Amino acid sequence: MADIARLAGVSVATVSRALAGSTLVNAATRERVAELARSLNYTVNVAAKNLRLRQNRTVSVVVPFDADLRQPLSDPFFLSLIGNLADALTDRGHEMLLSRVDANRLDLAAQGVEAGRAAGLILVGQWRHHDQLNALAVRGLPLAVWGAALPGQAYATVGSDNVQGGRLATSHLWQQGARRIAFFGDWQLPEVGQRHQGYLQALEAVNARPAAKLMLPVPFVNSAIEAAVENLVASGTRFDAVFAASDLMAMTVISTLRRLGRQVPQDVLVAGYDDIPLAEHFHPPLSTVRQPLGEAGPALVAEVLAQIGGARPSSRVLPTTFHARESSQRA
Amino acid sequence: MADIARLAGVSVATVSRALAGSTLVNAATRERVAELARSLNYTVNVAAKNLRLRQNRTVSVVVPFDADLRQPLSDPFFLSLIGNLADALTDRGHEMLLSRVDANRLDLAAQGVEAGRAAGLILVGQWRHHDQLNALAVRGLPLAVWGAALPGQAYATVGSDNVQGGRLATSHLWQQGARRIAFFGDWQLPEVGQRHQGYLQALEAVNARPAAKLMLPVPFVNSAIEAAVENLVASGTRFDAVFAASDLMAMTVISTLRRLGRQVPQDVLVAGYDDIPLAEHFHPPLSTVRQPLGEAGPALVAEVLAQIGGARPSSRVLPTTFHARESSQRA
Repeated sequence: MADIARLAGVSVATVSRALAGSTLVNAATRERVAELARSLNYTVNVAAKNLRLRQNRTVSVVVPFDADLRQPLSDPFFLSLIGNLADALTDRGHEMLLSRVDANRLDLAAQGVEAGRAAGLILVGQWRHHDQLNALAVRGLPLAVWGAALPGQAYATVGSDNVQGGRLATSHLWQQGARRIAFFGDWQLPEVGQRHQGYLQALEAVNARPAAKLMLPVPFVNSAIEAAVENLVASGTRFDAVFAASDLMAMTVISTLRRLGRQVPQDVLVAGYDDIPLAEHFHPPLSTVRQPLGEAGPALVAEVLAQIGGARPSSRVLPTTFHARESSQRA
Repeated sequence: MADIARLAGVSVATVSRALAGSTLVNAATRERVAELARSLNYTVNVAAKNLRLRQNRTVSVVVPFDADLRQPLSDPFFLSLIGNLADALTDRGHEMLLSRVDANRLDLAAQGVEAGRAAGLILVGQWRHHDQLNALAVRGLPLAVWGAALPGQAYATVGSDNVQGGRLATSHLWQQGARRIAFFGDWQLPEVGQRHQGYLQALEAVNARPAAKLMLPVPFVNSAIEAAVENLVASGTRFDAVFAASDLMAMTVISTLRRLGRQVPQDVLVAGYDDIPLAEHFHPPLSTVRQPLGEAGPALVAEVLAQIGGARPSSRVLPTTFHARESSQRA
């Protein structure tokens, strides 16, 4: 009540009367006091505490979704990354404001920060929205994005070395004797594009020419992956290996091939990307490129907190490693 | 500026001069205006918007951790539940404030709500803190807890039918011919306690007496699970099946038994609890009790929003089903 009195420039007695609805206080003052009381309910608790600490200890984490597909938040890689972010933020005394926004309205991702509910933004997934992300960064928003480092980038990314990952997986399949290696993944997505570059580099290194028919821009949608495998098999195009842009995609490729009578690894070698926990327990155990998840959360948190502290955006590329298991090796 | 003037009870011109630091405005008023400006930075954006909407559209989701173990947030069941909660909150136009607190200081879980940053609290995990949770509920905090419905409960829980789940798994193992079924899990935890009750009920239904040596109060810690399997085998106690209180526990039991030369399902039948995505792809595919994850998130969100709207706490028990796979069936 003393705070309200001080801010409203009236006596504590007047505040007391105003809050009691007394007509001894004129209507305008009553309204003013009531509004301050409501505001202070927040101000004193949140804002004042944040002001006292000279900082807001909440970071907004946004996972964009494709409005057409409206997929649930179930991708094991992103779920693990969110768990990892929650731990990294807790370790540094912060809370996490988690929300999802339409990937076509990434500008809405900044709302948490601009409304003062969070001090910075971590975006899990880059999609095709390089320009929108640049626009957010130019506005001075503390921002770290999980994704690929791209030319002409004003925002900070933390991501794995996708080119190296693509090269390692493809070289391994080649060394295992595969000569017609298919690539599955929509290379218009920045991260997948870099994995595809690695695929092309690995083929070039052995003077092999990539076959257009073997490069399939398949989105991360189960029905589309199944259809792509069915069409590839039905077309009669020869292929002896598949490098898929994610582990879930690789698993769907394997189960679809099996349904069509082709065994992995006996007939076709398969490698994925991510190394989700399921990968090594899958049947057959899945060969894959590991993204260093344990480093990803702390690196994203460190980057956004540095920017909140005034640092300029600075991107990081985390190393990738290849883990050969049964799915890519003939016995 | 008009807002500040109105709330401070001075003219817009005075606010303008005060913010510019003019000595034409006395020091007390300058300070008052500056403080209001800082507060309004939040008030106008967050609080005022919430007031305009007559509600705060953020729900706090807290995952307690054991301070001694400090396990990372990696349990696939809880990660999936968090993803599911994020989707359910997004669907209802809310944001999620995610944080972790020491399980021994559950009172801290209420901070987000009490500081005005969130309108209600969802707690993922009940632990042994029935009394602390009752204390939170008695304070009138909108609260929904993922866990077991217990006698004398003032707070609302949403959870799966643990007794039924335990009964289904144990009856199935019995029907498969197992006569010495071990129970793995710390039954002092409310959910595990109910799964253990179901185990006892299933044995009672066939007039079998549970053997104390076969009931092992093992915590959800890998090294403890491995040690429990090693001790059980070393003791020479005969057992032909294991019902484990979670899928991760069942998987650790299987890999430890394999290391000790016992095969699943040839030598020992094993069933788990949760039906995490990995379960059906594990080697061998894991028989387990499915918790209805797709219903869990929406049910928790519906309950906490109902309480925010003034409803009294109301618990829900979601049905469980048993899914028989290779790990519990001799070929």
